[in-house]
This record gives sequence, C-alpha cells and structure tokens, in this order.
Amino acid sequence: MDLRTLNTPAALIDVGRMQRNIDRMQTHLDVLGVRFRPHVKTTKCRHVVDAQIAAGAQGITVSTLKEAERFFADGIRDIVYAVGMVPAKLGQALALRRQGCDLKIVADSLEAAHAIAGFGRAHGERFDVWIEVDVDGHRSGIPPEAGLLIDVGRALVDGGMALGGVLAHAGSSYDHDTQDALAAVAEQERGGAVRAAARLRAAGLPCPVVSIGSTPTALSAQRLDGVTEVRAGVYVMFDLVMRNIGVCELSDIALSVLTTVIGHQEGKGWAIVDAGWMAMSRDRGTQRQAHDFGYGQVCTEDGAVLGDYVMSAANQEHGIVSRAGSPDTGIAQRFPIGTRLRILPNHACATGAQHPDYQAVGEDGVVQTWPRFHGW
Amino acid sequence: MDLRTLNTPAALIDVGRMQRNIDRMQTHLDVLGVRFRPHVKTTKCRHVVDAQIAAGAQGITVSTLKEAERFFADGIRDIVYAVGMVPAKLGQALALRRQGCDLKIVADSLEAAHAIAGFGRAHGERFDVWIEVDVDGHRSGIPPEAGLLIDVGRALVDGGMALGGVLAHAGSSYDHDTQDALAAVAEQERGGAVRAAARLRAAGLPCPVVSIGSTPTALSAQRLDGVTEVRAGVYVMFDLVMRNIGVCELSDIALSVLTTVIGHQEGKGWAIVDAGWMAMSRDRGTQRQAHDFGYGQVCTEDGAVLGDYVMSAANQEHGIVSRAGSPDTGIAQRFPIGTRLRILPNHACATGAQHPDYQAVGEDGVVQTWPRFHGW
Repeated sequence: MDLRTLNTPAALIDVGRMQRNIDRMQTHLDVLGVRFRPHVKTTKCRHVVDAQIAAGAQGITVSTLKEAERFFADGIRDIVYAVGMVPAKLGQALALRRQGCDLKIVADSLEAAHAIAGFGRAHGERFDVWIEVDVDGHRSGIPPEAGLLIDVGRALVDGGMALGGVLAHAGSSYDHDTQDALAAVAEQERGGAVRAAARLRAAGLPCPVVSIGSTPTALSAQRLDGVTEVRAGVYVMFDLVMRNIGVCELSDIALSVLTTVIGHQEGKGWAIVDAGWMAMSRDRGTQRQAHDFGYGQVCTEDGAVLGDYVMSAANQEHGIVSRAGSPDTGIAQRFPIGTRLRILPNHACATGAQHPDYQAVGEDGVVQTWPRFHGW
Repeated sequence: MDLRTLNTPAALIDVGRMQRNIDRMQTHLDVLGVRFRPHVKTTKCRHVVDAQIAAGAQGITVSTLKEAERFFADGIRDIVYAVGMVPAKLGQALALRRQGCDLKIVADSLEAAHAIAGFGRAHGERFDVWIEVDVDGHRSGIPPEAGLLIDVGRALVDGGMALGGVLAHAGSSYDHDTQDALAAVAEQERGGAVRAAARLRAAGLPCPVVSIGSTPTALSAQRLDGVTEVRAGVYVMFDLVMRNIGVCELSDIALSVLTTVIGHQEGKGWAIVDAGWMAMSRDRGTQRQAHDFGYGQVCTEDGAVLGDYVMSAANQEHGIVSRAGSPDTGIAQRFPIGTRLRILPNHACATGAQHPDYQAVGEDGVVQTWPRFHGW
C-alpha cells in the first residue's frame, strides 16, 4: 500500500515526524532527570505507544479504564488512570489489579477516598491511590495548601490503602503563547505539586511519586526539582493548537487527514473535499487563538504547507477549502476534482478519535495500517 | 441490563421518543404524498434504520460508501450516496452495483459526469446518477437556472448513464428559527429542485426523481408538489440545535449521554462528570443560536430536564456541569459524587459518532445494546 492508493478520508501519521517528537520529549526529560509517562489518550494505538516505550517512557497514563484494559492486555503493567475514581468503577479497577496490572487510581475528595478504602478493605485489595492536586484552578484537584489534602491522604492511609503520590495537570498552559508565560506555568505546576507532596510528608504520610504534566509545560519546564515523573500526550503528534501556543512548528505536526477534492463553487473560491467534521472532528481549538486555522491547514498530498488555504467550514462528510482573505476564483484550476490534499488538524486527540485506524507513512513511503480503538 | 447498572459514559436512546419522532416524520410526508428516504449518517445503526423502514421509509441515504456497504449487507438495496462522486471511488460503487445494490451516485460538474460515464462504459455499467442542485448557496450543487445543469445531464445521457433525477439539500435551513422563515426555505428548496427537473425534462432529458430535504425543511414544508421524495436524518433523535431552530421540544430529544459525577469545585459551583468532549463530541452548534447550551442540557438519570444546569466546559474525559447565570455553591450537595445525570446533546449526529454502541432504553425500562459503526 502507498499514499497514492489510500482511500480518502484517511488519518495519516508521518512516522519520521512522530519519532522526532518522541525523541525530543524523551531527551528533554532525560536531561531534566525525571521519568516520562506518556498519556495514551491521544492515539489509543499500540504502535505509537510501543515507539514511546522503546524511546524510554516508563509506564503510561490513561483517561479511561478501557485504555487500561487494552494496554494491559498488550503487556503494559504500570498504568495511571488519571480521572477521578467513582465507586461504580472500582470493580473494574479491582479486576485489572487481580490480573496483575499495577494500576494507580486518583482521588480528590474525602467521599472518593472513603469509597476506595471501603471497597478495597471489603475485597482485600490495597489500592495504590494518587491525590489530584489543583495547581491552576483549571479543573479538578485539591489546592496544595488546603487542609483537605492531608485529610484525604490520612483517610486513604488509615483506610489501609497505599498513598502513592500526587498528580497535577496545568491545563491552563493552553491559554498562553509565549515562552516566558509557559515557563511560568510550568514552574507553577511543579511548585504546586512539590508543595503538596512536602505537606503530606510533613504530616507523616508517604508521597513517593510527584507526577505533573501537560505538553506545553513539559516542553517549557526549565527545572523539575522534586518531580519524579512527567505526563504528556499530544506532543507525540502535535497540532495547530500546539503550534499557536508556540511549542512546535507546522513542520512538526505528524497527524494529518488525507482528502480528495470532489467539487467547486468557483465564484466563492471554494473547493469541496470529502473530509468534513466527521474526519477532522468538530474541534475548533484555534478559534480563540492568535491564528484561526478554521478546521485545519491545507497541504499538498505530500505534506507541503499551502500558504493561506484552510478548511474554512465543514459538514459531516464535506469540507470547504478556501483561501483566507480574498477568495481564489481560480481554485478549480488550482485544485481540480480528484486532487488529493492533506489537512493538518487543530487537535490531534480529537481528530484521531474520529478514525478506526491510522495510516502510518514511513520515511520510505511505505504505508502501514495502525489500528486504534474507541469507546469506554 | 438496566439503566442503573450501565457503565458511564454511555449514549442512551429513549426508544419511545425515537419511535414518536419516526412516526411524526413519516406521517407528515405520507400526508404530503411523497416517499421518505432517511439519511442514516445520523445513527449508522441497523436497529434504528429497521425502525425507520418498518414505519414506511423507502430506501436510505448515505454519506459514505461504507454506510452503503454495511446497510446493503443488511438487506437494503435502494441507496443514494449523497456526496459528490470522485473517480477514485467508482470501483467501490461498481462493486456494490455488481452485487445487486441499487446504488445511486451524485454529480455536480462536467468533470465528474465525464469520469463516471467513461468509467461506466469501460466496465459495462450503466450508473444511475442524480445531479446535485444548489438551492441556497450552502455548499455543493448546480443552480437550477445554470446552463451547466443541462450540460451535465446531457454528458451523462450521451455517455450512456441513467440520469435518475435531481437532489437538493437546503442546509441554510439551520440558520433560521421561525416557522415562517423555515416554511420559506422549504419552499425555496422545493421550488429550486422542481425547476431544475423541469429544465432537464424540457431539454429532452429524463428526470424521474426529485429528491429534497433537511430535517427543518422536511418538517416545515406545507406542500411538496413536484417532489417525489424527501431525505432527512437528525429528526430521528433530534437535538438542542433542532430545539433552537424550533422543530422539536426538549422532551422530543431521544439521544442523551449518561454520565457520573466524579468530583466538585464547590466555590466555583462546578460538578465534574465523567463525560467530556469524547462522549459529547466537540460540536458547539448552539453557540451561535439564541440559547447556548454549552456542551449540553443536564437532566436527571431518568431524563427530567434540570432547568439551568448545562455542561459548560469539556476536556477529553471530564465535563464541567454548572448553573447558567449564578454559580450554585451548593452543587456538591445537589449532585454528590456518584450521581448519574443525562446530558442532551447539541448535535445528535456528532455525539452518536463518538460511541461504538447505543444503549436503547425501552419504555419497559429494559436496556438493549445497539451497535453502530464508524470510519470509511
């Protein structure tokens, strides 16, 4: 199989770019002296995760228990489920641990801590629980200075569970686009997690792991004293949101959607393509950033960026490609019916999820199908 | 299986509501004297399509050739592929027809017409081709008055193909929210398609089928003289976008996402739930409408609408539920950890596509798993 014979739309991975992205993150964290635990929610693809582990990653992060089950079945034992545990899912977590999976779960409330400890004791299982720390008001977690932090740690330990560490994610890093601001958020993420760990230890509680991370902070951190591991997901593909944040160039983006021109509206300067939001996802993550790429940046079939051409609108299986600014009324000659284009996506996690498979294009031009899974 | 034991997140179908939506559309079109050809892109689910056909639908509309292949394998022969045909997909279309599928394909340019005719002659296949007509400048198609319409019709007929009809879709109907405006767009869609058919016939070309439709226009049309069939997709589930347009009530929406509360940020009035954009999709279709529902309207587990509570923000596997207007600082008491909620989606086609299965909740409370497929 090669690029010219693929059906469209298709999700392409440029394997050379992917490998360079993996090596860049791993080398950066090796230099800073911390372990790296990639977040596999971005690709849910064994081939990609194998490459991350081959480069030096230690363990994985998952966003669903289905990811944990699939990757454990593929031989990965060291897994953090980084979404707050609820009582109804403890049976599923228990089953994984009973099969030998070193699954870590997360709590950020007394209710969750008590539920985990109660269930664990009832089933003779000492769950390994990490406390989620809120370092930027972005979403979940307990502020490092809150009394609740110690209460939750004590509830877990007194309840017979293993308090494995703290976990933080500076999701607000996505709101910045200068190196100084990103370095500051990275330091805020590091400082918050390290302070939380210190408070737990000062209270006589264990806290072996200090886990932090997001792609922008991981790549912008200048020191990681006190941190034991970093998590990041989208860095493996990168996307237009990350390009606008400033942590990659367009030429680093490893994921694209291959599409075919199916028609035109010449007077409007539109080429209609067979990739719509079903293939791109509805993610409009660059809408509020400095450069709005619509539904994606248009490139040639071989991946050369085509200046001002973007996918400006999308229906389910139709995309509209047009030139930003003035309409290109010669677009039917520029991109005749049958022309194949690549579209760089706003958000690699969302675009990947629309596809049952990736088509991985090697540097030798050979294309391999890499399955991914979806659902819960 | 019942509702209380389902894992979350899950895509629920309220089967009673679905059946009422199916009956409403079918009855309306029966009264207007036209055939109904549902667009199966909304659900890609055999169980739903079986119910549509049982109610009287004749044939289906698809947005991908994979849908055609799957539903043909399920026994449906009469299929329109309503996306402009490109040369590279003609082999796949030919294979379907050779297996006995009565597949109709679509063209809106001379290039496509010549490519179809050339390929058809080379393979001894008389493709049934419908010409796409542009009735509102929304996307694809040839204006009813354009000379190109006759040229494309003649190219098909002279090339030995069957000119099966014209097909129009008033996508701009989504931009309106009054009954008068919707009725006017419906009449514009009808009139444009009928004029195109009349021009083809006046030129001595056949045009047996006049196919139009979108959910808003189908439900708002007051007469359909000259039309032979209507297509619509989202009506089977409805969603918040359709509610804002004015063609359904919240209580008609048959699709929802079941989710569990996993934590809180009390000071902000947030409940965190285990459905994020992966479960809801990134579709923010109500953002530019009169009532912005965020990522969805919150209901109880049993489906009662909870006033002003919406999913106001979403990450991949986390949603933030909050009260529109003033924060509910008692939200942790209102929705304790473990509380199960249903979220009505902005866009049923997009939300459904995020899930491998629907969980169909019957009026007797029994839950059945209805698989759906994705990809191309």
